[in-house]
Amino acid sequence: MAKVFDAAEVAKHNTSESCWVILYGKVYDVTDFLSEHPGGAKIILKLSGKDATEEYDPIHPPGTLETELKPECCLGTVDASTLPKVEGLAEPQEPAQGPPPVETLLNLDEIEEVASKQVSKKAWAYYYSASDDMFSKRFNNEVYKSILLRPRVFVDCTKCDLDTSILDYKLGMPIYVSPAAMARLGHPSGEAGIAEACRSFGAMQIISNNASMTPEQIVKDAAPDQVFGWQIYVQVDRKKSETMLARINKLKNIKFIVLTLDAPVPGKREDDERNSLAGASTAVTSGVKAAERTSDDTPDVSGASGGVGQQLFAGTDPSLTWQETLPWLAKHTDLPIVLKGLQTHEDAYLASLHTPQVKGIILSNHGGRASDTAPPAVYTLLEIRKYCPEVFDKLEVYVDGGIKRGTDVVKALCLGAKAVGIGRGALWGLAAGGVDGVRRTLQILADETKTAMRLLGVETVDKLGPQHINTRMAEQQIYDGPSGLDSLRRVFRAKL
Amino acid sequence: MAKVFDAAEVAKHNTSESCWVILYGKVYDVTDFLSEHPGGAKIILKLSGKDATEEYDPIHPPGTLETELKPECCLGTVDASTLPKVEGLAEPQEPAQGPPPVETLLNLDEIEEVASKQVSKKAWAYYYSASDDMFSKRFNNEVYKSILLRPRVFVDCTKCDLDTSILDYKLGMPIYVSPAAMARLGHPSGEAGIAEACRSFGAMQIISNNASMTPEQIVKDAAPDQVFGWQIYVQVDRKKSETMLARINKLKNIKFIVLTLDAPVPGKREDDERNSLAGASTAVTSGVKAAERTSDDTPDVSGASGGVGQQLFAGTDPSLTWQETLPWLAKHTDLPIVLKGLQTHEDAYLASLHTPQVKGIILSNHGGRASDTAPPAVYTLLEIRKYCPEVFDKLEVYVDGGIKRGTDVVKALCLGAKAVGIGRGALWGLAAGGVDGVRRTLQILADETKTAMRLLGVETVDKLGPQHINTRMAEQQIYDGPSGLDSLRRVFRAKL
Amino acid sequence: MAKVFDAAEVAKHNTSESCWVILYGKVYDVTDFLSEHPGGAKIILKLSGKDATEEYDPIHPPGTLETELKPECCLGTVDASTLPKVEGLAEPQEPAQGPPPVETLLNLDEIEEVASKQVSKKAWAYYYSASDDMFSKRFNNEVYKSILLRPRVFVDCTKCDLDTSILDYKLGMPIYVSPAAMARLGHPSGEAGIAEACRSFGAMQIISNNASMTPEQIVKDAAPDQVFGWQIYVQVDRKKSETMLARINKLKNIKFIVLTLDAPVPGKREDDERNSLAGASTAVTSGVKAAERTSDDTPDVSGASGGVGQQLFAGTDPSLTWQETLPWLAKHTDLPIVLKGLQTHEDAYLASLHTPQVKGIILSNHGGRASDTAPPAVYTLLEIRKYCPEVFDKLEVYVDGGIKRGTDVVKALCLGAKAVGIGRGALWGLAAGGVDGVRRTLQILADETKTAMRLLGVETVDKLGPQHINTRMAEQQIYDGPSGLDSLRRVFRAKL
Amino acid sequence: MAKVFDAAEVAKHNTSESCWVILYGKVYDVTDFLSEHPGGAKIILKLSGKDATEEYDPIHPPGTLETELKPECCLGTVDASTLPKVEGLAEPQEPAQGPPPVETLLNLDEIEEVASKQVSKKAWAYYYSASDDMFSKRFNNEVYKSILLRPRVFVDCTKCDLDTSILDYKLGMPIYVSPAAMARLGHPSGEAGIAEACRSFGAMQIISNNASMTPEQIVKDAAPDQVFGWQIYVQVDRKKSETMLARINKLKNIKFIVLTLDAPVPGKREDDERNSLAGASTAVTSGVKAAERTSDDTPDVSGASGGVGQQLFAGTDPSLTWQETLPWLAKHTDLPIVLKGLQTHEDAYLASLHTPQVKGIILSNHGGRASDTAPPAVYTLLEIRKYCPEVFDKLEVYVDGGIKRGTDVVKALCLGAKAVGIGRGALWGLAAGGVDGVRRTLQILADETKTAMRLLGVETVDKLGPQHINTRMAEQQIYDGPSGLDSLRRVFRAKL
Repeated sequence: MAKVFDAAEVAKHNTSESCWVILYGKVYDVTDFLSEHPGGAKIILKLSGKDATEEYDPIHPPGTLETELKPECCLGTVDASTLPKVEGLAEPQEPAQGPPPVETLLNLDEIEEVASKQVSKKAWAYYYSASDDMFSKRFNNEVYKSILLRPRVFVDCTKCDLDTSILDYKLGMPIYVSPAAMARLGHPSGEAGIAEACRSFGAMQIISNNASMTPEQIVKDAAPDQVFGWQIYVQVDRKKSETMLARINKLKNIKFIVLTLDAPVPGKREDDERNSLAGASTAVTSGVKAAERTSDDTPDVSGASGGVGQQLFAGTDPSLTWQETLPWLAKHTDLPIVLKGLQTHEDAYLASLHTPQVKGIILSNHGGRASDTAPPAVYTLLEIRKYCPEVFDKLEVYVDGGIKRGTDVVKALCLGAKAVGIGRGALWGLAAGGVDGVRRTLQILADETKTAMRLLGVETVDKLGPQHINTRMAEQQIYDGPSGLDSLRRVFRAKL
Repeated sequence: MAKVFDAAEVAKHNTSESCWVILYGKVYDVTDFLSEHPGGAKIILKLSGKDATEEYDPIHPPGTLETELKPECCLGTVDASTLPKVEGLAEPQEPAQGPPPVETLLNLDEIEEVASKQVSKKAWAYYYSASDDMFSKRFNNEVYKSILLRPRVFVDCTKCDLDTSILDYKLGMPIYVSPAAMARLGHPSGEAGIAEACRSFGAMQIISNNASMTPEQIVKDAAPDQVFGWQIYVQVDRKKSETMLARINKLKNIKFIVLTLDAPVPGKREDDERNSLAGASTAVTSGVKAAERTSDDTPDVSGASGGVGQQLFAGTDPSLTWQETLPWLAKHTDLPIVLKGLQTHEDAYLASLHTPQVKGIILSNHGGRASDTAPPAVYTLLEIRKYCPEVFDKLEVYVDGGIKRGTDVVKALCLGAKAVGIGRGALWGLAAGGVDGVRRTLQILADETKTAMRLLGVETVDKLGPQHINTRMAEQQIYDGPSGLDSLRRVFRAKL
Repeated sequence: MAKVFDAAEVAKHNTSESCWVILYGKVYDVTDFLSEHPGGAKIILKLSGKDATEEYDPIHPPGTLETELKPECCLGTVDASTLPKVEGLAEPQEPAQGPPPVETLLNLDEIEEVASKQVSKKAWAYYYSASDDMFSKRFNNEVYKSILLRPRVFVDCTKCDLDTSILDYKLGMPIYVSPAAMARLGHPSGEAGIAEACRSFGAMQIISNNASMTPEQIVKDAAPDQVFGWQIYVQVDRKKSETMLARINKLKNIKFIVLTLDAPVPGKREDDERNSLAGASTAVTSGVKAAERTSDDTPDVSGASGGVGQQLFAGTDPSLTWQETLPWLAKHTDLPIVLKGLQTHEDAYLASLHTPQVKGIILSNHGGRASDTAPPAVYTLLEIRKYCPEVFDKLEVYVDGGIKRGTDVVKALCLGAKAVGIGRGALWGLAAGGVDGVRRTLQILADETKTAMRLLGVETVDKLGPQHINTRMAEQQIYDGPSGLDSLRRVFRAKL
Repeated sequence: MAKVFDAAEVAKHNTSESCWVILYGKVYDVTDFLSEHPGGAKIILKLSGKDATEEYDPIHPPGTLETELKPECCLGTVDASTLPKVEGLAEPQEPAQGPPPVETLLNLDEIEEVASKQVSKKAWAYYYSASDDMFSKRFNNEVYKSILLRPRVFVDCTKCDLDTSILDYKLGMPIYVSPAAMARLGHPSGEAGIAEACRSFGAMQIISNNASMTPEQIVKDAAPDQVFGWQIYVQVDRKKSETMLARINKLKNIKFIVLTLDAPVPGKREDDERNSLAGASTAVTSGVKAAERTSDDTPDVSGASGGVGQQLFAGTDPSLTWQETLPWLAKHTDLPIVLKGLQTHEDAYLASLHTPQVKGIILSNHGGRASDTAPPAVYTLLEIRKYCPEVFDKLEVYVDGGIKRGTDVVKALCLGAKAVGIGRGALWGLAAGGVDGVRRTLQILADETKTAMRLLGVETVDKLGPQHINTRMAEQQIYDGPSGLDSLRRVFRAKL
C-alpha cells in the first residue's frame, strides 16, 4: 500500500539534494531527474516541495510522467486535506463571469478579446507573445490590408464552393489549423477539441510536436477521411524523435509530416518571458539566453528559466540540414514531407529540388515568434512569383501568419497558396468557447471567404488568381536584390 | 364591424403556430405569412403578440401590407388603452434636445456628428456601418486627400457655374443623391424629403429599390424637369421586379434605371449586425450567413436574422449576368440602363460594349459596404484612364463613395467623372434636419465645389481636367498587372 | 458744441431704419452706410445701438472712419458714465497671467502656444484657421521633414553669414515677414511693432493690404535702408486701389508691390467662421457663401457674416488677369511687381514672360488658407526645377508656408528660393511678446538657420544648393503629368 | 594652516568683482578665472558664494581644478557645519526606491525607462536630448524597422560566434560603446564602470573627449588586450589638445584616435536647454546662441548659458579641415585616425583618399544631436554602396545611432559595417545599474544578435551580407541626385 504524506513533510524536500513534487495527488522524488528535465532543473526547483499539478498538467501530454520517471520515484500519495487550497487551473484576469455565447462574436478580433479575458495570464502570454517588438506579428496582418481586391461584377454568384484538396486529400475548406502548442492551457478539451471542430468542416489540422495531448488522443474520434499532419521538432536525442515517428506512422489519419525550419532556436518572446518572471521567485535572464545554452561552453550563471516557449524548446536540434535531415527522415517514415518556415525564394527553390520526398512547403515566419522583422508569408509568395514561379508547379505551397478575415484568405489563394493556416486563431477560439469556439472561428472564416469569393465573382477556390487582386503596394516592398538562385543552380547541377 | 382586441389577448399569439402582430392599431394574423417574409420568420416572431408598428413602419413603404397579406388576415383593431406606452419612433441615444440649427453646421462631418445623436441606434448602425474592418469606407475618403490640386492663378474667376447634364438632362450641379435605403429611419420626411431638397438645387436623385416610401410618393411633388433614376435590385421572384419596372415606366421624372452590381450578396456590416444582436432575444449569426442561405442546401441552424442590411437584401437575385439580365431588362423597360458598382477597368470596358442600352456606369464599392479592401472609385477611374480611356467616350461615368468636400467633387470630375453621388451624406443631412438638413448638405458641397473651382481658375465643370490635379501618389498604388482586356476583346470579336 | 447722448438713447437706434453706433466715445449714424460697408450690413447691425469700438478698432486702420463717413454722420458724444463696463480689447481664454519672458521660449511652436493663450478667441481663430480640413496647412510643414539634409564635414565653419539681397536691396537675413493682416488683433503695437523688430535684424516686411495700421504708420520709424513690400488686393472699386497705390508710391521704404493671386476668393476657414458664429446672435452661413455673393444673382438669404477673413475679403476683385491687371498696375506705379501665390510650374513660367515689370514670384498656397490640398511651396519649387528651371534665371523666387525651423529655411534656399516668408510666425511672436516677441521669433530662426548652415559646411546663403539635401521622397510625390508649357509657349510665340 | 570660513562669509563674494566658490570643502577665489572658464562666466556666477561641488563634480575629471587655478586661489576650507544641508548628487524624479534588478530588464527600452527614473533631471535631459524636433533621433531607430530580414533555413546553426576585429585588434563582439560624455552624471562608477563592463565581453569602448574621468582612470583596470579609442574635440587652444594627445599616446590600451566631425558647432538640444532654464535664476537664450558666439563680433547680450551640451562644447574649434587638421594630428600622434560623423558618400570617399593615416570612418549623425533631419547611418551606408563601394575596401566602416535590438546590429553589419556603436544605450545601462547595468545592456544586445544570426542561418559576423536583408524601402528614400564624386576626383587627380 502506498504511503500517505503530509504536505508539510513534502515541503521539506525542496532542494537539489532532495527534491520532491506532488503531481495528481501522488508524491514523486525527482532529485535524480533534475538534470535530465528538458525544460531545465530550475523550473522544477521552483515547484519543489509543492503540488506542481497546476503547472505540469496543461503542458505535458499523458504518459510523460510514466516515460520519464522510474516507478520507484513514486513515493506514495499526499493527504489532500493537508494541502493549501488550490485556486483552480486558470487564474482569470477578471472576476469570473461566463464568456458571451460564441454565436454573438462576429469576427476573430472579438473572439481573441473574449478569450484573453478567459485564460490564465500564462496562457495569454504564451499565445499572444511574439518576438522582440512584435513588428512581424503586426505586419503579417497589415500587409493583407495593403492588397486591394478587384471585384468582377455581373457574374452569377449563386454557387460558391470552398472545397479543395491537399496532397490529393479532399478538404472542405482551404483553411487549416496550424501546429500550435499547448492547447490545454486555454481549454481542457485541448487539441482533441480542435480536431472535433475541424471534423465539422472537413478542415485539416496539423498537430504540434508540443501538443498537450498525445497524437493518439487527438485523432481518436476523427472522421475516417479527416486529414491531419504532424509537426516534428527534431530532437537532439534523435531516438526520441524516431520513437515518435514510429507512433505517427501507425495513425492512418496523419497524412504527412511537417518539418519546422523557422525556429531552429527560439525567438525572444518578451510577453511570455515577462509573465514567467512575474511568477518566478528567482531572477531569470532573457529568453535569448536559452538559444545560447545550446552552443556556449561558458556556464550559464544567470538563472534563466524563460517563458513557456523557452521550456517547450528544450532539446530541439538546431543542426538540421538539407543533406542530413531529409535522408534521416526517409529512414523513419514514408509519409510525404512538408517543410515549414520558408521565407525566401531561394529556400523555396531548394525545396523544389527535393521532390518527391518533399511535397509541400509552408511559407511562414512562425507567427512573428522567431525572427522579428522577418517577412510576412505574402512577401515570400510574391518573391517566388517573381524569381522562380516554377516552384508552384512542383510543390504545394501553403502560408500562415496574420490571417484574420476571409479577404485575407482569398488574397493568399489568389497569389498561389493552396491553403492558409491559422494558429493563434484556433487557440483563441478554443479558449473563448471550447469546441464551439473553434467551430465559430472556422465558420466565420469560411463565411467571410465565401462572401469575398462571391463578391469577386469567383465560384471555386481554384479559379482565384492574381488578376483578382492589386498587389502594387506590396510589390514595391519585396526583395529586389540579386537572387541566390544562380549559384544554387550551379551547385545542384554540379552534383547531378 | 371590426372586432376590438385587448393587448393581452393578442400577446398570447406569439408562436409559429399562431402568430399575431399589431400594426397601425390593427391586429393581423401573420401565421401563414411567416415562411414568405422576405426578411425571414425570425424577425416577425420576435415581435409576435406585440405592437410591431415602430419596427415595421420606417422600413416598409405604404402598400406593402396590402400587397403581402390577404384581407382576411386583418382580424380587427386593438384597444389602444390596453397597449403599453410606446416610446416614439426614434430612441435617441442622448436626452432629447433639439439639434442645432442646420445653418450653424459648417461641413459634412459636423452634420454627421449631429445626426448621429439624433437618430435611433438602429438607424445609426444601418447608415454608419460598412464591411468588415471598414477599410474601404475610410479609404474612399482618404484617397481624395492624397490627390493634390494644381490651382492656376491670374484667371478671372468672377463667374462659376455648376450646371451640367446627365444623359442629356440638365442638372443644377454635378452632385447627386445615391440610392440609399431606409430614409424614414432617419427622419419622417424620408426619400420625399430628399427629393424636395434636390428640387431646390436642380440636383438628381437615384431612388433606392429599398426606399421606405413608394417611388410614386417620392416623385409626387417633383419639378417638371427634375431628374430621377430608379435603382433596381433584381429579385429572385422576377415577377416582383417586373411589376416594379412597370410602375417605374409610368413615372415621367424617372429617366433611367440603375442596376446595382456591386452587392450581389450582402457584405458583412458588423455595426449593423451588432445593433441587431443587442436588441434580439435570441442568438443570431453573422451576416455572412445570409449570403450562404441563398445557395447552401444545408439547413440554417444558427438562428440568423442579421442587421437591417441583411433583411433588406432578402430575395435579391445573385445570378445576374451580362448575357441574361440586360436582355430581360430590355423586355421590361425602354429606359436607359446605368450599371452601378463597377470596380475594374475590365468591367468598365465590358459595359462600353453594351451601348446603346447601357448609357452610363457608376464606379462604386457600395460605400465600402460590400467587399472590404475593394478599391475606391478614384482608383477605378485611374485604371480606366490607364488601360481603356475610350470608355469615357462611349459611356457617362459617375462615381460615389467617400465624398465629403467640394475638393473631393472637383478631383473626381477632373479625372473624367460626369457626376458624383453622395449616399450617407444625404441621409445624415436628412437625419440632422429633415429637408433643410439635406438642403444644407447640398448647399455646403455646392459652395465648396464652386470655391474649389474658382481657386483652380475654372469656370464650368466641363473645363475641369487631369491637368488640374496631381495624382502621383494614387497612381503609384493602382493595379499594374496584366489587363484582362485582350482576352475580352478576343471573345467579343469572335462573337461578332 | 457736440451733443452728449445717454447710452440708453443710442440703444434705441438698432435697426436698419435707424442704426447708430458708438466709436471712440462718439456717436455715429451709420444708417446710410449700411449698404456700402465692405464687410456687409449684418456685422454692423449686430453692433447697432452699442459701443462698437472693441470690434472696430483692431481691424480698421486710422482714417477709415473719416474716409468712409460724411462729417454730419457724427451726431455727438456719449456720456461715458452711462455705458456698460467694457471688458478690455482682448478676452483672454485663461485667467490673465503675464506670458513667460520671450527669452525662455525656445522655438516657434512654444511661441505659438504662449500666444494662443494670450490673444482673444477672435484673434486666435483668425490667425490659426486654414481651409477645410487644414491638410495643406499641416502638409506645408510636414513636407520639410521629408527632406533630409546632407551635412558635409571637415569644413571650416567658423564664419557664417545670413546676409542676402532681394531685388538688389541688401537684407540681414533671407527670412522675411509675409503680408499677414490684422496684427493689432494680437497686440496693440501692430504692424509697426513688426517693423520695429525687423529693423533690428535688417529683415524685410511685406505690409498687408489689410493691415490694421496705415502704411504710413508702419514705415514711420523705419531705418533708411529698411526694405518693405506692399501687398495689394485689387478692389472691385479700382479707384480705392489707385488711391492706395498713389500713397504707397510716396513711401520710399516700400520697394515693390506684391500682387496676391492665390486668394481671388476666400477659402473656407472654419475655425474663423465658427468663432464668428459663437458670438453672433443670428444664424450665419458658411464662408463659402461669400465667394458666391460676388457672382451669383440669386439673393443671399442665409444671413452670412463669416469670420474675420470673410469680412476682410469684401470688395476684392476676383477678375484679375495677366492681360488686364499688369498693364493697369503699370499705369499706377513704377515699382517692381512680385506675384504671390503661384502653385504650378506653368504659372511660374508665365510670370517669367512678364519681365521686367514682374521681378519676382512668391510660391505660396496662402498658408493653407485658400485651397485645401493645394501643394506646398516646396513641391512647386521642385516642379519648376523639373519642368522649367530657367525661371530661376529670370525671376527671384520666394516661398512661404510651413516654415518653423532653421532647417526648413535652409531646405527652401537649397532648392532655389531667394528668401522665405513667415506669416503666422510673426503674428504669434507679436501676440506672445509684442516687438520683443517678433524679435525673439526672428532671432530663433536666424540662429537655427546659421546652425543648420554651419552643420552643412556652408558659409553664405548663396552657396546652398540642391546637393545639400535629399529630396527623394518629395520628388516621388510631385506632379508628373504632361506639362502645360508647350501650349503656353505656342500661344506666346504666336503673340510675338 | 588653512583658514576656515563660515558659509555666510563665503556667500558675500557672489559678484564678478569678488567671486568665491566652495568645492570639496575648500574655498576658492575664482574672480580672475571667470573670463577664462570654457563654460562661460555666467554658470560660475550662478553658483558664486555657494558650495558648487554638486554641480562641478560629475562633469569635471579629477585634476581639472589643479590645472586651471593657481595655488593661491585656494583660500582655505569651509566650516562644514555652517553649510546648508546638501541633498545629494542626484535629485531623483521619483521618491527613491531601488531600481529593479537588471536581470529582470528584457530589452534596451526597459533599461532606459528604469534609468530615466533613477537619474537627476539634468542627467536625463543631457542624455535624452537631441536636436530640434528630434526627428533624426527617432528616425535613426525607425529606419532599421523598415529593413526586413531574409532568414535562410535548414542550415546548421548550432554554432554562432560574435568574434570580430577592428583595425586588426580582436574583439568579443561587433558592438562597441560610442564616445558619450558625462557618465558620472548617471552613476558614480562613470566611464571606468563602462570599461569594466566592456572587459567582461571583450567589447571596445571609445572614450569621450568630455569624459567625467581622466583617460588614465578609465583604462586603469583594463585587460591587457582590451581595446579603447579616444575621441578628440580639437580645441581652439591647440596646446590643450596637444597636451591631451601626449597623455593618450602613453596609454597602451588606446589604439586609435577618433576625430569627431559631425558637431563642429553644437546642435540645438531643447530638452537639455529647458532643464538648464528651469534651474537658472537668469534668463538664458537658446543654445543656437553658443554657436554664434564663436564667430559673431556683436556682443552677446542675451545672457546665454545653455544646457550641459552647450557648456561641454565651449572651446571647441570649428575650423577643422582635411588640409590642416590631419597633418597637425600626424605631428602629435602616430595612432591611426578614425573619422566620426560622415553623412555623405562624398565625405566617405574623401576619407578613403587619406589612408593610411585614416584607417576607419564612423557613419553617424551624432545620435540626432547635431543637425536635425540629418540622415541615419544606414542611409549613408546605402549611399556609399550605391556611389562608391570601393570605400569598404580601403577603410573600416562603423556606424552608430538608433541601435536598440540585435536585429538592428545584424542589419548594419549586413550592409558592410564592421561594428556598431551604442552611446545612450551604455549610459542608460550605467544609470540603471552601474557596471552590471552596462553588462546587462551588452548581454542583451549580444544575445539578440546571436539569435538573429542563427535565425538567418549565419555562423560568424563576416558571413553576413546584403543577401540577408531586404532594403527595398530604404533604398527608395536615399539620395538619388548627382554625385559630388566627379569633381572630387578631378580635384584630387590634379593635386597628385
